[in-house]
Amino acid sequence: MLDRDHFERLDLDDPLAAVTARFHLPDGVVYLDGNSLGPLPAHVSRALARVVDEEWGEGLIRSWNRGWWELAGEVGDVIGGMIGAPAGTVIAGDTTTAALFKTTMAALRLRPSRPVILTDSGNFPTDLYVLEAAAGLSGASLEVVGPHEVEGRIGDDVAVVALTHVDYRTGRRHDLAAISEAAHRAGSLVVWDLSHSAGAMEIDIACADMAVGCGYKYLNGGPGAPAFTYVSRDLLPEFTNPISGWWGHREPFAMRTDFEPAPGIERTQVGTPPVISLAALRSALEVFEGVPTRLLREKSERLVGDFVRLVDERLDGFQLVTPRRPEERGSHVALSHPRAREIMAALISEGVIGDVRPPHLLRFGLAPAFQRHVDVWDAVEAIRRVMDNDLWRSAVAPSGPVT
Amino acid sequence: MLDRDHFERLDLDDPLAAVTARFHLPDGVVYLDGNSLGPLPAHVSRALARVVDEEWGEGLIRSWNRGWWELAGEVGDVIGGMIGAPAGTVIAGDTTTAALFKTTMAALRLRPSRPVILTDSGNFPTDLYVLEAAAGLSGASLEVVGPHEVEGRIGDDVAVVALTHVDYRTGRRHDLAAISEAAHRAGSLVVWDLSHSAGAMEIDIACADMAVGCGYKYLNGGPGAPAFTYVSRDLLPEFTNPISGWWGHREPFAMRTDFEPAPGIERTQVGTPPVISLAALRSALEVFEGVPTRLLREKSERLVGDFVRLVDERLDGFQLVTPRRPEERGSHVALSHPRAREIMAALISEGVIGDVRPPHLLRFGLAPAFQRHVDVWDAVEAIRRVMDNDLWRSAVAPSGPVT
Repeated sequence: MLDRDHFERLDLDDPLAAVTARFHLPDGVVYLDGNSLGPLPAHVSRALARVVDEEWGEGLIRSWNRGWWELAGEVGDVIGGMIGAPAGTVIAGDTTTAALFKTTMAALRLRPSRPVILTDSGNFPTDLYVLEAAAGLSGASLEVVGPHEVEGRIGDDVAVVALTHVDYRTGRRHDLAAISEAAHRAGSLVVWDLSHSAGAMEIDIACADMAVGCGYKYLNGGPGAPAFTYVSRDLLPEFTNPISGWWGHREPFAMRTDFEPAPGIERTQVGTPPVISLAALRSALEVFEGVPTRLLREKSERLVGDFVRLVDERLDGFQLVTPRRPEERGSHVALSHPRAREIMAALISEGVIGDVRPPHLLRFGLAPAFQRHVDVWDAVEAIRRVMDNDLWRSAVAPSGPVT
Repeated sequence: MLDRDHFERLDLDDPLAAVTARFHLPDGVVYLDGNSLGPLPAHVSRALARVVDEEWGEGLIRSWNRGWWELAGEVGDVIGGMIGAPAGTVIAGDTTTAALFKTTMAALRLRPSRPVILTDSGNFPTDLYVLEAAAGLSGASLEVVGPHEVEGRIGDDVAVVALTHVDYRTGRRHDLAAISEAAHRAGSLVVWDLSHSAGAMEIDIACADMAVGCGYKYLNGGPGAPAFTYVSRDLLPEFTNPISGWWGHREPFAMRTDFEPAPGIERTQVGTPPVISLAALRSALEVFEGVPTRLLREKSERLVGDFVRLVDERLDGFQLVTPRRPEERGSHVALSHPRAREIMAALISEGVIGDVRPPHLLRFGLAPAFQRHVDVWDAVEAIRRVMDNDLWRSAVAPSGPVT
């Protein structure tokens, strides 16, 4: 029988305790939404003040030659290290949506005679929208199948398989290696969106052709942090950026009138990256320095496994939507309940922050970098309290456009 | 005869003195590169610390419903006020290059039977690159003519006229109203890049169909600050975003699988904007609160006029490249000299920061918001010193990729 002491002991023995201690979390809050917006590493504020006061305020334009120029690539290499990508194949910048647009368009150009982009119905909405747009611009068509039908559908009419690794709602995880290999056997390219996995688990990036991901979830880069883009070494020389801007030029400051792409991953860039947001991301990533991604995944598996076990043992009326097999899931848990919205409102009043996704999923992120094991116990106990005392009946959901 | 006292008196009488006083500039530096990277408004550092510590650190995901959601549109409206655009027609986000890609692609879609994008050879390189890319994706072709040939070339084969208002090298300014009207008479659309004018002068935005611009030059939003996008009210309902992402959706958090664009300027958005960089821009724009743009232009004209007069009177061997008529120029001055690079290196050693552009232009930005009139005197005196004492012969240019 699990109890709170058990989880406190896990925290004491946590090999990531020193990482977890670096985060600032508000008093009285159990934060289970790191899969949506990672919390603040406490040192970031000081680091940003230095960027603003010294680099911008004192260095002015000169700071471009004192580190700003290299920033996007440096951040990319740190993220690359976390997803298993070699140096020089990952870069930070733009939004995840824009990054997916660029990589998908570039991939389509490499398979011009194939008419289909293949994705699945569990993909994140913005991915579906932008894949449809890329299809329209390229004369291809987007085909959307169920998540378990993807592998069987891959054939020689498929130019690009574009998928999100971990489903933002259910937490279901695709077998990245198996699908990538199936795509390659059929001569298709594969673009992965790692938004819901990078920073929480190891990635078989060597199997992927291209990948994109989000800087503000498990990487904790701050609200709207720049995205990242990966292109395999083999494909880099053939990568054509559909938004060819000066930042992707071989010599941006030669101010040439003709476009010649940079030889490396820089060719995926567009315009001047948002240095202050990029500096926040760089600073935030320091918490992962020297941390094997394997440890993140091990802790994530335990957090998720314990959460599921406590739901099974201590709650009634919730349906577990997340797969039960660890190898089939990411780092968040989704529970279905007809009163999801009211229950989450009550939980937030109790200090437990998760979120809801239509139509009635409660999502609980369990981010290995900052989560404490007692968070699992405290969250499930809060759900019990909300249900046993009918607190959800009187709860008022936070209002606003963002859920 | 002008002397330094004359300029000190101008500073004492400057109606923008209170604005100028809000900027932090390093001791001993005369900064004439605000046309490339605006300096730091002193209050921004504190404002950003609040965003990081309170909004991100304490508010976490809840801050999206406490202001972050509206931020891009609020910043857009402030910039809109400065360029004469009505509320709800300007929004901040992405890079200038991406913004130009989106607007040009949307404009091309509205003139599908016309084969030409028209621009001029003085356009900024990234604009040329991305216009070429947009042409390629749309089956149009890009035609590049001399700056003074644009108006005469506009005809009924031209889908889009895409120009930069003020030439980044020469400072030559297009007649935005006249060219826009010529375009409209021919049934063409016109997209203006205001990167080198917004924040320094009034803009006849009512004549434009769409416009984009830079947040980090005369708007002082910090390195890589988000760009802005303007779409006229008439065209907004017909604007199709080529990179349709969730942030441009009518209901982003309904997580619908089909894309329905937002009714207003939000439809030009792509993904989650970089909130921290956006917050820096919003904070920086406070220096313009209550400042009529007319005063910025008046001061700019005087600074530029005085600079040109002092060059005429006190320097030999420099060729003025910037037009002599105030209505034909922006807010920076370009001088041509075969030793431009060495001279600028010497000037930077003397504490006067401008920059050079190929092949041998010295650029001096005269940004009305933060510039003091004595900067004009001090800069020209420094050039005299550098030339009279041959300081340029021994000067070492700062090394690095950014010039």
